[in-house]
Amino acid sequence: MLAAIEAGGTKFVCAVGDEKGNVVERIQIPTTVPEETMPQVIDFFKKYEIEAIGIGSFGPVDVNKDSATYGYITSTPKPGWKNYPLVQTIKETFPVPIGFNTDVNAAALGEATYGAAKGLDSCLYITVGTGIGAGAIVQGNLLQGLTHPEMGHVLVRRHPEDPYQGRCPFHNDCLEGLAAGPAVEERWGAKGIELVERTEVWELEGYYIAQALMQYILILSPKKIILGGGVMKQKQVFSYVYNYLQQFLNGYVDLPELSSYIVSPGLGDNAGTVGSLLLASQALQGENE
Amino acid sequence: MLAAIEAGGTKFVCAVGDEKGNVVERIQIPTTVPEETMPQVIDFFKKYEIEAIGIGSFGPVDVNKDSATYGYITSTPKPGWKNYPLVQTIKETFPVPIGFNTDVNAAALGEATYGAAKGLDSCLYITVGTGIGAGAIVQGNLLQGLTHPEMGHVLVRRHPEDPYQGRCPFHNDCLEGLAAGPAVEERWGAKGIELVERTEVWELEGYYIAQALMQYILILSPKKIILGGGVMKQKQVFSYVYNYLQQFLNGYVDLPELSSYIVSPGLGDNAGTVGSLLLASQALQGENE
Repeated sequence: MLAAIEAGGTKFVCAVGDEKGNVVERIQIPTTVPEETMPQVIDFFKKYEIEAIGIGSFGPVDVNKDSATYGYITSTPKPGWKNYPLVQTIKETFPVPIGFNTDVNAAALGEATYGAAKGLDSCLYITVGTGIGAGAIVQGNLLQGLTHPEMGHVLVRRHPEDPYQGRCPFHNDCLEGLAAGPAVEERWGAKGIELVERTEVWELEGYYIAQALMQYILILSPKKIILGGGVMKQKQVFSYVYNYLQQFLNGYVDLPELSSYIVSPGLGDNAGTVGSLLLASQALQGENE
Repeated sequence: MLAAIEAGGTKFVCAVGDEKGNVVERIQIPTTVPEETMPQVIDFFKKYEIEAIGIGSFGPVDVNKDSATYGYITSTPKPGWKNYPLVQTIKETFPVPIGFNTDVNAAALGEATYGAAKGLDSCLYITVGTGIGAGAIVQGNLLQGLTHPEMGHVLVRRHPEDPYQGRCPFHNDCLEGLAAGPAVEERWGAKGIELVERTEVWELEGYYIAQALMQYILILSPKKIILGGGVMKQKQVFSYVYNYLQQFLNGYVDLPELSSYIVSPGLGDNAGTVGSLLLASQALQGENE
């Protein structure tokens, strides 16, 4: 049996299943402090004979296998989780192969294998929710360089009529600072779900997301772009993204029809779980090679 | 003998040499129209027994091997070269394996093999000259997705005291529109070489380049960044790039010491030629597999 851990900032989704992405059982555990959350995570898996574990984690994380802190959640502001040895803690109880990456890279892997980018050797998965992050498959592999990408913090140009200063603790008005869920709520004084009818809310959201997509396209040239996360459940954002992206790129790059190029996740909310099962499967194969 | 063609917008650099990057002979041919330039290119190589050819070309080019226009220079505004079958024209005279990529991807390959990023499986090569372009090695391969990257056109935030509107025909004030050589000349009314003492010129240049590097780092996380091209011969730009990049990233990404992370080409002006020889060598190996 393979185990999947989608370690998020608000909840851990734990599941057992197979390398086809079939899930046998799944639970959610609130992300409080490690001393509370981790024992519940471990207890859940103890019921099963686990062969390998895949972890897609909130970040930043250390994904460099040569590093002394490989498997750690590193500089997160989340209390208790800074410099937390996530892989090591799991491995104490389950000494099996463990695949480890960011939550968004896991989701990108899930979508490229069984979802909206199935069969492609290149895709970009972006989540717009409590934060903004992205993972990518490049020429068949999860993108990694010096470390994993941190695409949510790209700089965008403030809309001339948007007085909101942004809320990123590092960059104020980077993409995440202007367009993640908490920024929407703070700017408009209400949660997204209460703003459904306010088209200006979603047009502005599309304005910022389109700018980020322009950068991603110019730099990575992905074969498919998948936009997930809570904010993107407001489907009306997509048409604003298409319109602004067309306006910004101005014909410079020859792209497929945007409505088939920039899409919702094919796996819905399961991309991260399926991707984590695939990370487990890859880890198991790596061990057996 | 391997042949290298660095097809640039102002000149073609043609060379013969080996897969170690050793050059036996090299010539430069002005890029006028194909009917003038190409016969000279072909004549030069006729003297040698050519086993394979590597071409690093100005773009945009079609690098998708499954495409009907693979090997073409596509939508360039340069008269005579739009939709020009570069690889096919060469192949008519030299029916040997041909490796084909962008000029900047070739340079990135050269730098990753024998230059400033030697031994690394990841680097970014940026040229700031008549235009701005970048190539990248990601996990050991030249970056390619839907097509090759077009990183020179990323959006940057205009400096509040820079009234210059930019000159990119597609985006006005994208990076290339604000910071390539012709933009420097138009903004300040003199060529870069006459502006050496004007520190404000180079500080502004560093301001824009640093913004682009921030995007590249957040999206690609390269292990080394190489800044080449005519404008970067003004070495004073580097310290402005370091300072602004530090200010913009604000500690969010843990980077090596910037003066060893962002560097000049290790191969000087030869990165493109050496990279093209390597493209030829790869094509030859591919054929023999």
